[in-house]
Amino acid sequence: VAQTSLPVVQIVKRPGIIELGWGHPDPALLPIEQMKRASSAALNTSDALQYGNSNGPGPLVEWLMRRIADQEGRSIGPDEIVITGGNSIALDQILDLHNRPGDTVLVESPTYHLALLILRGRHLALVEAPCDVNGLRTDLLADILTDLKRAGKSPRALYTIPTFNNPMGVSLAKARRQALVDLAAEHGFLIIEDDVYRELPYDGAAPPSLWSLAEAGVVARMGSFSKSLAPGLRLGYLTAGRDLVSGLVDGGVLVSGGGVNHLTAVAVGELCNCGDFDAHVEVLRASYRERRDTLIAALKDCLPAGCEVSTPGGGYFVWITLSGNLSADDLLPIAEAEGVSYLPGSKFTLNGGHASALRLAFSLYPPDQLAEAARRLGRAIRAAL
Amino acid sequence: VAQTSLPVVQIVKRPGIIELGWGHPDPALLPIEQMKRASSAALNTSDALQYGNSNGPGPLVEWLMRRIADQEGRSIGPDEIVITGGNSIALDQILDLHNRPGDTVLVESPTYHLALLILRGRHLALVEAPCDVNGLRTDLLADILTDLKRAGKSPRALYTIPTFNNPMGVSLAKARRQALVDLAAEHGFLIIEDDVYRELPYDGAAPPSLWSLAEAGVVARMGSFSKSLAPGLRLGYLTAGRDLVSGLVDGGVLVSGGGVNHLTAVAVGELCNCGDFDAHVEVLRASYRERRDTLIAALKDCLPAGCEVSTPGGGYFVWITLSGNLSADDLLPIAEAEGVSYLPGSKFTLNGGHASALRLAFSLYPPDQLAEAARRLGRAIRAAL
Repeated sequence: VAQTSLPVVQIVKRPGIIELGWGHPDPALLPIEQMKRASSAALNTSDALQYGNSNGPGPLVEWLMRRIADQEGRSIGPDEIVITGGNSIALDQILDLHNRPGDTVLVESPTYHLALLILRGRHLALVEAPCDVNGLRTDLLADILTDLKRAGKSPRALYTIPTFNNPMGVSLAKARRQALVDLAAEHGFLIIEDDVYRELPYDGAAPPSLWSLAEAGVVARMGSFSKSLAPGLRLGYLTAGRDLVSGLVDGGVLVSGGGVNHLTAVAVGELCNCGDFDAHVEVLRASYRERRDTLIAALKDCLPAGCEVSTPGGGYFVWITLSGNLSADDLLPIAEAEGVSYLPGSKFTLNGGHASALRLAFSLYPPDQLAEAARRLGRAIRAAL
Repeated sequence: VAQTSLPVVQIVKRPGIIELGWGHPDPALLPIEQMKRASSAALNTSDALQYGNSNGPGPLVEWLMRRIADQEGRSIGPDEIVITGGNSIALDQILDLHNRPGDTVLVESPTYHLALLILRGRHLALVEAPCDVNGLRTDLLADILTDLKRAGKSPRALYTIPTFNNPMGVSLAKARRQALVDLAAEHGFLIIEDDVYRELPYDGAAPPSLWSLAEAGVVARMGSFSKSLAPGLRLGYLTAGRDLVSGLVDGGVLVSGGGVNHLTAVAVGELCNCGDFDAHVEVLRASYRERRDTLIAALKDCLPAGCEVSTPGGGYFVWITLSGNLSADDLLPIAEAEGVSYLPGSKFTLNGGHASALRLAFSLYPPDQLAEAARRLGRAIRAAL
């Protein structure tokens, strides 16, 4: 292979810094051998190289339908599910199909900063709805909806990550789930549920998806293999109302090109159907649970009194609110000089809120490094206070 | 693996019918062993399973840059190229970035029917520009542009397949290529060049791409691995002006999700860099050349006088204009009863033009079946006349 000056992967690690700003999996936990077997099995016939079925390859779609029926208690037909190229492009495609520029769209705050980039790219009128440690404040959302109605505006959609959310790591409380679904049905907006962390619960089962609680058509749930298997697969699935699913399946892109990411989808179908998926997510849960526990314990030891640390039930992230109204933006260069990095809380809002908060990802490094990162962060905060 | 009632692939073949309506490759010509080796090599490290570089993995992007410099005489930087998920989604994304609903967009006629589906999905005001056996009639296009200008309309884009076009199989004449590029620069519209058949010339080299003839920013050229390797890869590339490329590379979808279809892109980079790509397209050219020659010869033997048959220099398709103004829609059931199918010409236009023409694909079947298909078609036409 010739000289390659361009990178292969997205992440750039700086020497001497424990990079807790990146919400990426640990490369050591990626299912390399399983994907080798699955890719080889997928290529035992030519099927995986032909134009694929528009919904996705049957064995993968049917495995998902069985799993969803088992775990979420909802039986769906193949007209309510479609394979996607991961949640980033799925979000963009849902917004594109469902909204027009200028539409009012609600976003929880704080929320995934790069979802905000996708939402902003669609020229929407974005309105924030605040979260606390139990997720979206549905009581405040009801007020916002009343105010919008009074102003003659009816929101078309709401974007939320109700389960092991990014950036806070917390989940929407069960009573609020039903309240949110009811508000959506009442006000006629689509809930776009980013369900990417569902397979990574560390304290018992994940809470029910909003999609599983709602009438058909109220929620578009984006599931993904990025956290349960690997982000480089660029593979996920959408369960949603028939209109939205057929908007994708019967649209020109899939009718012309066939199913999304077909070769990879056939390979992942092999991986799931042979039992490797369930075995792998068990390994991930044990490993990330230990990382979470180690990081939380170390933060409690090392951070000055007054700093608040979220208690994530799953996923990748811990959210810290700094004591003394310290600015996480101002703290960052001090922390990096100590050898630890993070993302400041303001990145996860539209207008710079949560300036005293920060997000740590515990997915990328083993426990000893996470404990060291907590010590470095503690030193940095003490230096800055 | 459990019962699968849902299909894996897109194509449905009916017993007893030689299906020349599908522009699909012959499964026997798909590079199964090469992709097995490439996928295995791609999974020698975890790189292919991580979030990918936004432009695409370095080894694939740099192989493309070298190949384009060698074959098209144009050296580009990495800010002028991005890996795509194939031409269908690339077309949709370009239209989405470059146009707003209601914009006037020109399409050659006849053209790829499923590109029309994608274009229609964008709510554009589509205007047809006629083609003949030398491709787009640039003289008539100049008149159309004048008329549009007089009506106060300035087209934003033009969609064309100038090389081994779908459905006619012919290429835009060289003098018309320069004329088209000049018209685009003069009138300020973007040429969206669908260059999917470039690697399949059967009579010497493919003509120069419009992209290679134009100033930067005038042409967005969509290249693809669907015909040179396999459609199930869902992989292609875009060479275009820096603004359009950065619209994709710096947009939320790629910044969030990383490079398109990353695992497959890394595998295809392995396949290309080890020399398998060049060897494989040689095999394809020889095989499809024989199919074209066999089909054309059989059609000349079997069709009644007055039927006109195009002489494709590459690609997948032959275009037939029937004698006696026979309707290709009316002929279809008669042809299928004889055991051959095709797509009627009217499908390739916005408003039902070319009703006496039809498209045959010679890619899917071996020569003996193509000769038999020609005999069946000849019988059907004689029965219908």
